[in-house]
Amino acid sequence: MPTRFPKTIVILGGAGRMGRRFGAWLAGLGHTVHALDQDNAREAPALLARAHCALLALPIDQTEALIGQYAPLLPDTALLADLTSLKRRPLAAMLAAHPGPVLGLHPMFGPSLAEAAGQRIVVCAGRDAHASAWLLEDLQALGAQLVHAEAEEHDRMMAVVQAVRHFVTLALGSFLAEEGIDIARSLDFASPVYRLEIDMVSRLFAQDAGLYADILLADPERQALIGRLAEHYTGLAALVGQGDRTGLCRRLAATGGYFAGEADRAMAESDALIAVLAARMAGENPRQP
Amino acid sequence: MPTRFPKTIVILGGAGRMGRRFGAWLAGLGHTVHALDQDNAREAPALLARAHCALLALPIDQTEALIGQYAPLLPDTALLADLTSLKRRPLAAMLAAHPGPVLGLHPMFGPSLAEAAGQRIVVCAGRDAHASAWLLEDLQALGAQLVHAEAEEHDRMMAVVQAVRHFVTLALGSFLAEEGIDIARSLDFASPVYRLEIDMVSRLFAQDAGLYADILLADPERQALIGRLAEHYTGLAALVGQGDRTGLCRRLAATGGYFAGEADRAMAESDALIAVLAARMAGENPRQP
Repeated sequence: MPTRFPKTIVILGGAGRMGRRFGAWLAGLGHTVHALDQDNAREAPALLARAHCALLALPIDQTEALIGQYAPLLPDTALLADLTSLKRRPLAAMLAAHPGPVLGLHPMFGPSLAEAAGQRIVVCAGRDAHASAWLLEDLQALGAQLVHAEAEEHDRMMAVVQAVRHFVTLALGSFLAEEGIDIARSLDFASPVYRLEIDMVSRLFAQDAGLYADILLADPERQALIGRLAEHYTGLAALVGQGDRTGLCRRLAATGGYFAGEADRAMAESDALIAVLAARMAGENPRQP
Repeated sequence: MPTRFPKTIVILGGAGRMGRRFGAWLAGLGHTVHALDQDNAREAPALLARAHCALLALPIDQTEALIGQYAPLLPDTALLADLTSLKRRPLAAMLAAHPGPVLGLHPMFGPSLAEAAGQRIVVCAGRDAHASAWLLEDLQALGAQLVHAEAEEHDRMMAVVQAVRHFVTLALGSFLAEEGIDIARSLDFASPVYRLEIDMVSRLFAQDAGLYADILLADPERQALIGRLAEHYTGLAALVGQGDRTGLCRRLAATGGYFAGEADRAMAESDALIAVLAARMAGENPRQP
């Protein structure tokens, strides 16, 4: 372990949920943490002028503007880092606005999590990696797993991990509602895997629609990807509509190989999940009409 | 408990996996079970003539033809029942071909299951319910939960529970393959919910493509439903493509109410599933590029 020097860290958006979470973790490691937000925005020049690090925990649509506004208030030697869920554009904006060390982070978890242990944080190099080594060591000290990636790769993967996944699940829920399917009754007929799907749909719809809209609309690449997804569904549905069993089997068989590497893990893991659900279902009596 | 009389039961398709499974369960309850299949088809007249019950455990595409062929060999007082995954047409075929008691069953589980305890079986009344009461009591004695439904309701619900669910998951896998997404790498960036989705995709693709094609193509109503699903996805994707945040939020908010009744259960249940996955993920080190 290197000798550790406590830092003075200013968290922009420090009153938000993610800002408070990281602030508490970093303060717990011995750093001096100042939260900067709308309420105390006029303290920004004084706070930032003596910061070793400014950490941006801001909504994605405000990040770039606030980088331009606050980065010039930092000492050139301070570390400028962010927690934004996209990485390419925020990183470019930080590099343009600040001449010193820059680091991009994206925690793969929400602010409701009390501990970072076992959780993943994506790390995108910006400038002067030596100057941000202490922060990464601190995150690892909290138990976080660091996933190093280029900003381009991160954004491409997140379009799939976030946008495609959310779209598919949201659209399924929206379709079942439009068809007027009695969800509670459908669960009487459910396999554990169908029930799991309904759980995931219900879980998404229990949360804020605006949040998901923002995820889907976060950048033009995502929007285009969702468009290609819908085209793909339409193409497969056409094979179903034509009753083209041979064509359908050919398409499905071609994809099977693509997922072969995950098959063993996925079967064992989904068996464990299905067992959890089956045990819950066995304890329930189906409703009778 | 009524006094129990052991029955002579002939299982058509008795050499298949589902036929063997039900045969073993019924024999275990004290009945005399004969398996009838291609190998011993010439014994059909002798076996069926002294059967109290014929149970059809046949592939969906053979059920109707074989009902016409074998039902006339049964005594008029024997019970004719089936395990087919659709219910309207097989039930109509049984009622047309057999003048005596008729019962439709659909086990909501696969033949790999060693025990029926806690599992659901859909029951569709055919003719002369008193004459099939012993079979339903036996299934309950095995621990199965009976879900009574009209054949029409069953088929409509199964189109959702089986066909829609499989289509959405298969099409997602096919899309990710077409896009060339590195699945193993994407899991480094995964939330538990994304990983769960990939597990379900990988699970489906680890199994026989022909089976899923048959589920999707089982009847014209399903094919039409899949067509409407693809249209629905296209409509929502258009809102995403246009960047229409207001329109998207309005659509999502409208659906939210539809799933409100499931929200509490779904959150608690999916939290339990996510905890299982998060524990597995915390034990793994992300691959580094």
